[in-house]
Amino acid sequence: MINVGIVGATGYAGEELIDICLRHPNVRIIHLSAKIDKPEEISEIFPKFKGRIKLICKEPNIKEIIAKCDLVFLALPHTVSMEIAPKLLSAGRKVIDLSADYRLRDTKIYEQFYKTKHKDKMHLPEGIYGLPEIYRTKIKNARLIANPGCYPTAAILALAPVVAFNLVDLDSIIIDAKSGVTGAGRKATQDFFFSEIDEDFKAYKVNTHQHALEINQELSKLAGKKINVTFVPHLLPLNRGILATIYVKKSQSHPSTSLRTGKVTKSQSLIGLYKKFYKKEPFIRIKKEGDFPKLKDVVGTNYCDIGIKDSGNIVIIIAAIDNLLKGASGQAVQNMNIMYNFPEYTALL
Amino acid sequence: MINVGIVGATGYAGEELIDICLRHPNVRIIHLSAKIDKPEEISEIFPKFKGRIKLICKEPNIKEIIAKCDLVFLALPHTVSMEIAPKLLSAGRKVIDLSADYRLRDTKIYEQFYKTKHKDKMHLPEGIYGLPEIYRTKIKNARLIANPGCYPTAAILALAPVVAFNLVDLDSIIIDAKSGVTGAGRKATQDFFFSEIDEDFKAYKVNTHQHALEINQELSKLAGKKINVTFVPHLLPLNRGILATIYVKKSQSHPSTSLRTGKVTKSQSLIGLYKKFYKKEPFIRIKKEGDFPKLKDVVGTNYCDIGIKDSGNIVIIIAAIDNLLKGASGQAVQNMNIMYNFPEYTALL
Amino acid sequence: MINVGIVGATGYAGEELIDICLRHPNVRIIHLSAKIDKPEEISEIFPKFKGRIKLICKEPNIKEIIAKCDLVFLALPHTVSMEIAPKLLSAGRKVIDLSADYRLRDTKIYEQFYKTKHKDKMHLPEGIYGLPEIYRTKIKNARLIANPGCYPTAAILALAPVVAFNLVDLDSIIIDAKSGVTGAGRKATQDFFFSEIDEDFKAYKVNTHQHALEINQELSKLAGKKINVTFVPHLLPLNRGILATIYVKKSQSHPSTSLRTGKVTKSQSLIGLYKKFYKKEPFIRIKKEGDFPKLKDVVGTNYCDIGIKDSGNIVIIIAAIDNLLKGASGQAVQNMNIMYNFPEYTALL
Amino acid sequence: MINVGIVGATGYAGEELIDICLRHPNVRIIHLSAKIDKPEEISEIFPKFKGRIKLICKEPNIKEIIAKCDLVFLALPHTVSMEIAPKLLSAGRKVIDLSADYRLRDTKIYEQFYKTKHKDKMHLPEGIYGLPEIYRTKIKNARLIANPGCYPTAAILALAPVVAFNLVDLDSIIIDAKSGVTGAGRKATQDFFFSEIDEDFKAYKVNTHQHALEINQELSKLAGKKINVTFVPHLLPLNRGILATIYVKKSQSHPSTSLRTGKVTKSQSLIGLYKKFYKKEPFIRIKKEGDFPKLKDVVGTNYCDIGIKDSGNIVIIIAAIDNLLKGASGQAVQNMNIMYNFPEYTALL
Repeated sequence: MINVGIVGATGYAGEELIDICLRHPNVRIIHLSAKIDKPEEISEIFPKFKGRIKLICKEPNIKEIIAKCDLVFLALPHTVSMEIAPKLLSAGRKVIDLSADYRLRDTKIYEQFYKTKHKDKMHLPEGIYGLPEIYRTKIKNARLIANPGCYPTAAILALAPVVAFNLVDLDSIIIDAKSGVTGAGRKATQDFFFSEIDEDFKAYKVNTHQHALEINQELSKLAGKKINVTFVPHLLPLNRGILATIYVKKSQSHPSTSLRTGKVTKSQSLIGLYKKFYKKEPFIRIKKEGDFPKLKDVVGTNYCDIGIKDSGNIVIIIAAIDNLLKGASGQAVQNMNIMYNFPEYTALL
Repeated sequence: MINVGIVGATGYAGEELIDICLRHPNVRIIHLSAKIDKPEEISEIFPKFKGRIKLICKEPNIKEIIAKCDLVFLALPHTVSMEIAPKLLSAGRKVIDLSADYRLRDTKIYEQFYKTKHKDKMHLPEGIYGLPEIYRTKIKNARLIANPGCYPTAAILALAPVVAFNLVDLDSIIIDAKSGVTGAGRKATQDFFFSEIDEDFKAYKVNTHQHALEINQELSKLAGKKINVTFVPHLLPLNRGILATIYVKKSQSHPSTSLRTGKVTKSQSLIGLYKKFYKKEPFIRIKKEGDFPKLKDVVGTNYCDIGIKDSGNIVIIIAAIDNLLKGASGQAVQNMNIMYNFPEYTALL
Repeated sequence: MINVGIVGATGYAGEELIDICLRHPNVRIIHLSAKIDKPEEISEIFPKFKGRIKLICKEPNIKEIIAKCDLVFLALPHTVSMEIAPKLLSAGRKVIDLSADYRLRDTKIYEQFYKTKHKDKMHLPEGIYGLPEIYRTKIKNARLIANPGCYPTAAILALAPVVAFNLVDLDSIIIDAKSGVTGAGRKATQDFFFSEIDEDFKAYKVNTHQHALEINQELSKLAGKKINVTFVPHLLPLNRGILATIYVKKSQSHPSTSLRTGKVTKSQSLIGLYKKFYKKEPFIRIKKEGDFPKLKDVVGTNYCDIGIKDSGNIVIIIAAIDNLLKGASGQAVQNMNIMYNFPEYTALL
Repeated sequence: MINVGIVGATGYAGEELIDICLRHPNVRIIHLSAKIDKPEEISEIFPKFKGRIKLICKEPNIKEIIAKCDLVFLALPHTVSMEIAPKLLSAGRKVIDLSADYRLRDTKIYEQFYKTKHKDKMHLPEGIYGLPEIYRTKIKNARLIANPGCYPTAAILALAPVVAFNLVDLDSIIIDAKSGVTGAGRKATQDFFFSEIDEDFKAYKVNTHQHALEINQELSKLAGKKINVTFVPHLLPLNRGILATIYVKKSQSHPSTSLRTGKVTKSQSLIGLYKKFYKKEPFIRIKKEGDFPKLKDVVGTNYCDIGIKDSGNIVIIIAAIDNLLKGASGQAVQNMNIMYNFPEYTALL
């Protein structure tokens, strides 16, 4: 049984972390904090938790957190995490950070985008990018996890097999992504009013979204070559879920040339490749030929569903996740399970 | 051709007034203003109007409004209208006020509820409650219209016939009302975030909503007796529309006793009564027996649909309107049409 | 560990039962069947279950069900359950029936409404109405549970305390209920198309809904007096959840007269009464004064939230549940947990 | 004043045609028909039209249609139109067909896709593809209009300028399109249940949608070269609207090379090109740099909004329309207005 704290408990990711941890047999939530006017029962803030947990949510107090917690989830806005994490790490606590602060290896890119100095260059190098399907071994021994962004989780999982095996033209990857509104966090702007979102649909941050930096970094590592994707996110009139439709051009080494055998279609050979690549993964499901993911199948779960179609020169890959689970809090708990040798799916099925 | 100004052009009601006036053959929008950071083309604020109107929306300037406009729509928050209206009226301009400032005859009730002194007691007495189905003759000659609230429009139209003819127990009227989110106006609170409203439903201001005062005032006038309704509004996860389900107990003089003849059901006799009461009304539609209103039939229109069921001791009356049209801007234009002798349905079909 | 079968596995309630049972540590799903064209992996029918269960769903085979199952959930349409249940009961199997077939004690009422003979009058008397808050002791020893309807669950739980203590006028109970679309089951009619429901709201079966019979039966038992409620259901544009707004007139013995003491408001005294009535209930949550239930707090849970307001002559009671959980499959599992002495909340938190 | 008939009046497009024609000062709806069980007042079928039109909708009777109508809108399923249109044309009536029957010039492609012989090869050659922005002159004198599909309208308008001027690589055009559910028509399948669509999002007919044929045909004509686009449609959980996000690679002759001058950004030079191309178009609106279309701005209107971003090697073009207006019935009326020399925007603003 470990004692966990959740800092940033009142945001969407924090709310979800509470829900998962309450179902986790090896976890005790011992601390909840957030930027908050006055201390308040968490079940007053989220009435749905009434009867399930009695704990006051208050402003974070580092000393208390260190005294009580084995592991701390930081579900904080970008640039705030890096002020808290170093203190926890120095005191020997483990940290899973859901912000972007420890994701980008190159502080120049971070500082250019977030327009602020990075304040914890000391711990940055030991932060592990918490995508278990790629970095499971490193996660096992990590004490600082940089939990991936929601779009990058979907995009990287969808592209890893073809990029790692160099099967596609790395210069023309197009990611057309669609997300529910909780992806933007609980920010109080008029853009997220019901009357603005309901019955509407639009692109935003057209090829200027910060998550592209994260996708580029990880895909480049997999490819061993610098990659710049084209990334256009869109806002769906629904609460949860990301679906990314990805278009890649085949390279010379593509399986439709090299791997195809008599009876297998081009799509099937690609699907086979994906199934092999993710063979032992508990949360990746590859759709059979002609089937494609839909949000309903993944929302409320920690799964990433992936469908693939070979369409001549173009390969179309579609991936779907719940942005608050596999795209945030579910993946954070998956990482915790790996760090503590709990069965990886605990509290996630 | 008359020149109109819309003060409060950036709210939902203002936006709707622009849309209707642009389709009105006898109206020229000559002035648009609102509480706004800097003057801006209205088609920048509402891109949907691009190509239909070129006019700068700016902070209201009373002198300019008086110089340019024949009639001014005030689509302003409560307590703001009564600061502007008197100046326009004194200069001889006509005013249709969509706020609550001129609706309540009794300033004590107004001041108790809105917790502020009424600032225009001079013009209050000449304000006409702009419900054409009840006050058409007075509206014709009015220069100040107090345009009714959305809930009161639905509730009063649904109850007027049975209340006026004293067919129901006036002490136990129950109004269970449900409204889309635009009913609350374009206010920036977290309560109206998409993620709060979507897939949710709840009651609010349970029997404490200010519109009950307006309903009580008008029904009492019709009955010639003080009425206090029970009024519980609810928030629907949709943009537009109000549906009110109303429960009344029959009084002794109820038609199921007195009016029924051989072959007519009790519901039919009540439906007949409503059809007669609203015989010449262009925007009231009475449903036939067994049929009831739904929002889809009235949203986007200026109609009020009403269905009635005699159910033993209880009569159930259901009314539906578009809260932004018959419940606000559509009714405002209907009032204008009456004031200027334009055909009443102009720009409203 | 018990072996359960789910007959009617492809409907909403069946789908939900699979989901709950997969999380239940004492339950093995051993049989899935439904009216179905050809046998198919349940994870093909519901891709969201892929990776969680491997089991073929096929046409029900009674012999096989009897051979394999300890307990059978019947998530079938009305009138179908009573053809299957007797065979299972005769073979000594336990049955939790989610249809209406064993709910109504009076077969005349059943036959009049469903326009068909009741086919299992033998077992009807031993069917226990599966509302644990009222019938827990009987449920413990039952072998046939008539799992309550969704509207009745919300309405009876909301009214039980005031009806049992005779605090309200039993002749004028008004239940204005609103339900998400899954309440209607997975029926293929144009009425439930997205384009018909989205942005719409309407009443249906206005005071003619079959669930009124169930509510009347159970409230009459509690009151020891025949009760006929006025019941108007409405259809919400959302997937899950029922919210019922209930209006009752106080009777002479009402606590605002008899129970009130110095500092307690009338609403508080009523709230106190409800808290006492439901003191030991794991799934009933009474809201504090001024707070009322909302769907978001109960959807996805087995809770019933209840808020109460004393409003002069009228008391307003608002109850909310998830129609597929506390209103169907969650309650069914709660009943199973009671029958098998599992902790009552197992798999339901 | 012309007399029009609408065959297929009960579908979404038919319903919309009625609504527009009722607002058209030069049009009298004289005939309404559809596949229907028994003749019925159109205001019984669509209660929202009550008070606006009194006309029986019945099974189509060709003789009667010919006797009464000057122009007939065919809002029928594919393969049905080509059985009715020839009779109307032979009798000298004008026809605007909203199905696909007269859109594809090459009957081999039509027959391969729709798996049926084309039954009116006689009139096919004189059918004009009713996209006014491309074929206005021909439409003026046409008597048979093949009204474009909804996706093709958005895609062709978005791509016409860059394709016509040969500014992009014609072999790698990617169209990622998203549509509301009314795009699929009023078909009674479980796929379009509210509970299936609400809170869901998915791709469908992944690069196999019939509209690709139409897009290919028209773009090929503009380019003077065979084009095969990659086209992936998705289903949005909302009623109306199409937004297409289009990715094209620049060719050598692209303006970022040839047209750019000192102070103009690459995106601006492209935007300038689009503004010029569509200079006189009443229903095309080009967004300024950094702004992109959203559904809310076009739904309920006949506009097509287009935004363009030059993003290095890739150009991103986003177009939005209301699928039932500019994508169907609005465009049909626009074509009628051109054919009869009515101002082109009549009844469409």
